[in-house]
Amino acid sequence: MAQNQEATVVFGVLNETSATESRVALTPDIVTRLKRSGISSIIESGAGIAAEYTDEDYEKAGAKVAGRNEVLAEADALGFVDRPSSEIVASLKAGQWVIGMLGSFTDADYIAALEQAGLVGIGIEKLPRKLSSAQSMDEMTSQNSVMGYKAAIAAADAYGSFLPMMTTAAGTIRPAKALVLGAGIAGLQAIGTLRRLGAVVTAYDVRPASKGEVESLGAKFLDLGLDFSAGQGEGGYARALTAEEQAAQQAAVDEKAAGFDIIITTAKVPGRKPPVLLTAAGVKGLHRGAVVVDCAASDLGGNVEGSVIGEQVTEGGVKLIGAPYLASGVATTASNLLARNVADILVHFVRDGKLSQDLSEELDDALVVAGRVATQPDAAESNQAGN
Amino acid sequence: MAQNQEATVVFGVLNETSATESRVALTPDIVTRLKRSGISSIIESGAGIAAEYTDEDYEKAGAKVAGRNEVLAEADALGFVDRPSSEIVASLKAGQWVIGMLGSFTDADYIAALEQAGLVGIGIEKLPRKLSSAQSMDEMTSQNSVMGYKAAIAAADAYGSFLPMMTTAAGTIRPAKALVLGAGIAGLQAIGTLRRLGAVVTAYDVRPASKGEVESLGAKFLDLGLDFSAGQGEGGYARALTAEEQAAQQAAVDEKAAGFDIIITTAKVPGRKPPVLLTAAGVKGLHRGAVVVDCAASDLGGNVEGSVIGEQVTEGGVKLIGAPYLASGVATTASNLLARNVADILVHFVRDGKLSQDLSEELDDALVVAGRVATQPDAAESNQAGN
Repeated sequence: MAQNQEATVVFGVLNETSATESRVALTPDIVTRLKRSGISSIIESGAGIAAEYTDEDYEKAGAKVAGRNEVLAEADALGFVDRPSSEIVASLKAGQWVIGMLGSFTDADYIAALEQAGLVGIGIEKLPRKLSSAQSMDEMTSQNSVMGYKAAIAAADAYGSFLPMMTTAAGTIRPAKALVLGAGIAGLQAIGTLRRLGAVVTAYDVRPASKGEVESLGAKFLDLGLDFSAGQGEGGYARALTAEEQAAQQAAVDEKAAGFDIIITTAKVPGRKPPVLLTAAGVKGLHRGAVVVDCAASDLGGNVEGSVIGEQVTEGGVKLIGAPYLASGVATTASNLLARNVADILVHFVRDGKLSQDLSEELDDALVVAGRVATQPDAAESNQAGN
Repeated sequence: MAQNQEATVVFGVLNETSATESRVALTPDIVTRLKRSGISSIIESGAGIAAEYTDEDYEKAGAKVAGRNEVLAEADALGFVDRPSSEIVASLKAGQWVIGMLGSFTDADYIAALEQAGLVGIGIEKLPRKLSSAQSMDEMTSQNSVMGYKAAIAAADAYGSFLPMMTTAAGTIRPAKALVLGAGIAGLQAIGTLRRLGAVVTAYDVRPASKGEVESLGAKFLDLGLDFSAGQGEGGYARALTAEEQAAQQAAVDEKAAGFDIIITTAKVPGRKPPVLLTAAGVKGLHRGAVVVDCAASDLGGNVEGSVIGEQVTEGGVKLIGAPYLASGVATTASNLLARNVADILVHFVRDGKLSQDLSEELDDALVVAGRVATQPDAAESNQAGN
């Protein structure tokens, strides 16, 4: 009780469940965690059920379960899996904080609307991911990791043969050959999971540094048989490729892809058109029964030419799965990780029992994308001195 | 060409594709294999497409692709994933052979109909599986192995968290705890696949011999905390349990099940009501989000009380998946293995370029369930002498 009375910041979470979203921005164990930091929680009834967390679970952990309007009215800060709709923004009061993937890199109008409403916007997309204090706040990493795992499971589920090699009395089944295009967090997790299942994995990424990471997971780095080193100093791929070189690279990927049974592409760029990694010609070159999981599929297109959200089978019998919502398909764990990410961001902004920003701090300066309050001159000075 | 002219036995396969069946009893590589044994193949157009084998693939391998009536008319022997419908049986001619899972253990009327039609029925369900020459003919083993693999993949796909342990900046995710009930071919394959994915696996089977097999795969054998050894000599579980003991055993499984995230049951008995391994009380004891895959689900019930074919979520948030058709979900490989099984049975019965049975042989005696031709006395004698 004493702890509850000390709580001066109220954190609110709404039900974001939809046909493609099962995650929730607060989980019961995080309620407990926030309480220890003097933050009380209020959550919309039913918000967690698609991720297997019941209202009772939240209440037992010490959260208040309420209707949407009550959450909107009582919360000092609201946390989102995604971001609040314009309708929700319109029903918020000046001074309230919203924490989420606000899309500040690509949607200036939305950020302007937050400003106009007098809200403080914390855009997780701007997290300085290399800062060690930001590691536990990194929603991009946690959710992409879940996505990569699930992409491998979804591919295995769709594929008409085994991933591992199997030796039976009726013959030996060769292991599946998988290609992962894009070897960031999601790609590396897909590689790891495909390898667990016994597939022989090859991966490619335009970043030359990824070769070592791919190989450290026991996968092969795709050799395109191209040499872009002419005309440049040390540093390998450091310069940008010319249009001709890019075309040559793309054609080489298409050609190499033909030998694979499973292809997973993971080059997702929130709010922007994803790069095409495999063209229609590349898809046509795949054998009947091959499975392609395009994690970047969107209304703007995906990493695979011709992929759309959902599942389709091409004329040549290739299963093309456009799957941008894979993290939501592992909702319990995905929610648990992202709730921790959002909570750690919230806790960072609670100083002396109140929400406040200090733009002289690198984290604050990066994350506050709306409702920025200029730092006191002396604070700025001390920051410079500290550098 | 010379080889084709020598071919005196024609093997026919029909299109058995349905909503729940994607497999086919002949694959292109088996066409080639049969040709080497002097057997030519004729297959119904489109029969392999659901398993990713096109008509062109079969033609290239040397099979004739034709309409259903032509296959029925020309084939000396017909091979089936399942068994021919009464309608197909009615359109066959006396003397033709049918090879499939004919259900001779449970469906005497069906076998009688084959007899009446003058057909020779080869019931794969009767295969003497321990005979070393029968290993490559063992469809039960090959298909149950596929089923067990797919059960683990389906469970992983339905489960809202990771199977492997994951250590992330936002916390450590514990590995999933899986329980496999029934540790035959399917169960052992499920154990292996769940373990590949990083789950912590426990298994149970009423056969005491299975303890060693389970443990050799790195899984734990479920300790029910019961002692049935009183009143019996050495040999442990060798005597049959009393009704009271059975009830105690069932209650113990139900109770132990509560600690698991994923449960896979595999005690399938073709044509008969499967034993209940997990009661409704056991299902009720599972946590929200737990996944149960019942491979024995059928219209007669399954291994899990309350399971039906398809997917349902219980009031307590448990995902109950009734999945008797899992082998068909890995159609390419499942077909490849079973086509080899069926072909090896066919080849066994081709003697001097003709289909014939020799009931003095253990394999023939077991497999011929309709149209049996009494063995010549001298052949029977030489068999006895050989023993």
